[in-house]
Amino acid sequence: MTGRTKYLLDEADLPTRWYNVVADLAEPPPPPLHPGTGEPVGPDDLAPLFPQALIAQEVTADRYVDIPEEVLDVYRLWRPSPLYRARRLEKALGTPARIYYKYEGVSPVGSHKPNTAVPQAFYNAAEGVRRLTTETGAGQWGSALAFASATFGLECEVWQVRASYDQKPYRKIMMETFGAKLHPSPSEETASGRAVLAEHPDSTGSLGIAISEAVEKAAADPDARYALGSVLNHVLLHQTVIGEEALKQFELAEDTPDLIVGCTGGGSNFGGLAFPFLREKLAGRIAPEILAVEPSACPSLTRGKYAYDFGDTAGLTPLLKMHTLGHEFIPDPIHAGGLRYHGMSPLLSHIYELGLIGAVAIPQQECFAAGVRFARSEGIIPAPEPTHALAACVREALRCKETGEEKVILTALCGHAHLDLPAYAAYLSGDMVDNELPDSVLAEALASVPAG
Amino acid sequence: MTGRTKYLLDEADLPTRWYNVVADLAEPPPPPLHPGTGEPVGPDDLAPLFPQALIAQEVTADRYVDIPEEVLDVYRLWRPSPLYRARRLEKALGTPARIYYKYEGVSPVGSHKPNTAVPQAFYNAAEGVRRLTTETGAGQWGSALAFASATFGLECEVWQVRASYDQKPYRKIMMETFGAKLHPSPSEETASGRAVLAEHPDSTGSLGIAISEAVEKAAADPDARYALGSVLNHVLLHQTVIGEEALKQFELAEDTPDLIVGCTGGGSNFGGLAFPFLREKLAGRIAPEILAVEPSACPSLTRGKYAYDFGDTAGLTPLLKMHTLGHEFIPDPIHAGGLRYHGMSPLLSHIYELGLIGAVAIPQQECFAAGVRFARSEGIIPAPEPTHALAACVREALRCKETGEEKVILTALCGHAHLDLPAYAAYLSGDMVDNELPDSVLAEALASVPAG
Repeated sequence: MTGRTKYLLDEADLPTRWYNVVADLAEPPPPPLHPGTGEPVGPDDLAPLFPQALIAQEVTADRYVDIPEEVLDVYRLWRPSPLYRARRLEKALGTPARIYYKYEGVSPVGSHKPNTAVPQAFYNAAEGVRRLTTETGAGQWGSALAFASATFGLECEVWQVRASYDQKPYRKIMMETFGAKLHPSPSEETASGRAVLAEHPDSTGSLGIAISEAVEKAAADPDARYALGSVLNHVLLHQTVIGEEALKQFELAEDTPDLIVGCTGGGSNFGGLAFPFLREKLAGRIAPEILAVEPSACPSLTRGKYAYDFGDTAGLTPLLKMHTLGHEFIPDPIHAGGLRYHGMSPLLSHIYELGLIGAVAIPQQECFAAGVRFARSEGIIPAPEPTHALAACVREALRCKETGEEKVILTALCGHAHLDLPAYAAYLSGDMVDNELPDSVLAEALASVPAG
Repeated sequence: MTGRTKYLLDEADLPTRWYNVVADLAEPPPPPLHPGTGEPVGPDDLAPLFPQALIAQEVTADRYVDIPEEVLDVYRLWRPSPLYRARRLEKALGTPARIYYKYEGVSPVGSHKPNTAVPQAFYNAAEGVRRLTTETGAGQWGSALAFASATFGLECEVWQVRASYDQKPYRKIMMETFGAKLHPSPSEETASGRAVLAEHPDSTGSLGIAISEAVEKAAADPDARYALGSVLNHVLLHQTVIGEEALKQFELAEDTPDLIVGCTGGGSNFGGLAFPFLREKLAGRIAPEILAVEPSACPSLTRGKYAYDFGDTAGLTPLLKMHTLGHEFIPDPIHAGGLRYHGMSPLLSHIYELGLIGAVAIPQQECFAAGVRFARSEGIIPAPEPTHALAACVREALRCKETGEEKVILTALCGHAHLDLPAYAAYLSGDMVDNELPDSVLAEALASVPAG
């Protein structure tokens, strides 16, 4: 074992292709269905929302997809991202475990989201699209698409979930600095938003509602397309640059992970890190346990139903086979805005059903405790979302302290908290609550899943 | 010329010693004087404020000072920092100039400040000090000392200039996340603060006042010492890791800077980048022009007096020979809080008087215009302070566009703006004004410089 703190790759080691895990699964995930016909959706159904290149990536069975040079050129602004050995955290915990984190906070907006925002903006611009619409929760995705749109000369319009819009005003400024136009969601700008406001004038919003608004606006404008920051196959595909780099970095570290932990909202950060390792596991070369961590307030994998449901609240999207809490479920306004989604990536849901990954739900105070511990030892203040994965790491590291096990833990530190600091203020002041999801609320929410 | 975007060094290339430019100057800078006796201050005068190791570094004539292993161990969390070629900005400007930036925003708090906060905390802890007091403007320095104090188990108490405390609430949360205790300055906690508040109850504060408060508190507590984030020789010494790394990175780039540009508040970011290049220039190996950029609202180098003056408003510090606007001068609350200091590093002032560097003052709107331009091309939103240097780069790059000159420009991008985003909101909304310093105000302020 070397004594290094971080493992950096050269620009020449930047992955030149994305990895499509579908090619290595025993069976493909169930297809999206048209809600009217109940038949699988085809490219024509998706054409009003996405450019052809992304529709093709959404359904491809190819194991690898080449990354365009124009995309690599932008990736080089921050990629390859560093892999760190958390030696100071290990020491603070007194654990024999070796903890590594792959840090995506070095990107322009401070998270993994530009990994897919950049190719999405590129393919749209290449096909003559002039503007993009999207939703955002905590604002990481909206910032990423705003940056990517500025890079390729596209206009960008963002619906941000009201809870985050109010809690995190700095994100709005970042998006505007990159030239984007912002709306809090639900808004008066769309029929979907107006419908929610009519029933719930004080709605704090949800990713589901914001998706409805952005989809509605894009579908009505022939020069516009919609961009999604997680959930879909092509998004998870783009994020695999994270795991491909981490594999090379573990070679430099001359080490092998026994446990890979990531937080899951829509699933793209987790899949991005885990899928290349899953490929190696399926090929029998390594044997890590892979664990998804979700918030107790929005536990789609651990307490949701695996069923066809809408991706948005208004029911404008195709039906997706996924773990869902019901498309009408509106999670409590916890501080990890990026994890407040009623569903889960269909691809990740399928992989979970195949038994290839595990999942656990953790309440937010334990997560922020892990975040503060991490900040005071490693110097980086983690975004609220990856504190969920860190809390699981801390649990495991402390277990290893009891057993003496030298387990190698790899976690996805998908972003920093610079624009989420009010969440830490709430935690430090003792004002934070845990918002465990009551059974009765869950039962009511699951009733909105269409019978099928 | 290679086609790279960034030049990364290995951990093994981390500098192992700091560079002391004093050793290479034809004459040393004038010493600090005791305000009572008019004699140079000795180690005993400084002992209530600083540990012995730092007092020794403050007056050393040695060309190099070894960096302790404990400090290197923390530096490795983010150092070596990257050197970028701003290819996308060059393209956006249409300039034949080659623009490089040394990026210090990768540190835990997002600026160059931990380069000195870490050794300062280390030396204090090593000598048994239990708590540190300090001032901070925009909050970059306070965050850095809060982080460094957490690292070495010290308590940390910070007086933040009221203007920034109110404009930038996120900085306060970052400092508290690292475990520090915050006060807006002027505060009721100290005699210096109470005196200001008695005369100006609505005072927006200044670095000079905040220094008085922190110094007063440390001097009264035998377990406490004071830490300063700029101005002093030992601070500039620690920052030279920036320039030492940049020299190696220019070797990788196979290029040589013709112009080096940095912003100046107290002078530590500028000196940190420039001094190692100045050593090479004095040795006749390279010949770059070196240019300091300050805000028009607080132009100590370009419009101040070179004279002995106090470092703080209440007159608690030794007298320092420096470019000063008068220790009672309170700059307008411009958004580059880190540049709101009435004086300038005595070492940098001396080097300016020797004719080894130039200086220019730029109003803040031009700086933010450069910042937005930079963000939309390079992806990084620069802190308000380094937008001053970027504005000078843009001026020069556009001049090169006229002349066709392939000038090589190197700038110090000493931090990002994640916690300064309200400044961008003010700029984007059109609410920002330029606060040019009127002659009458300057004349009145200069009257507070002691006769000598």
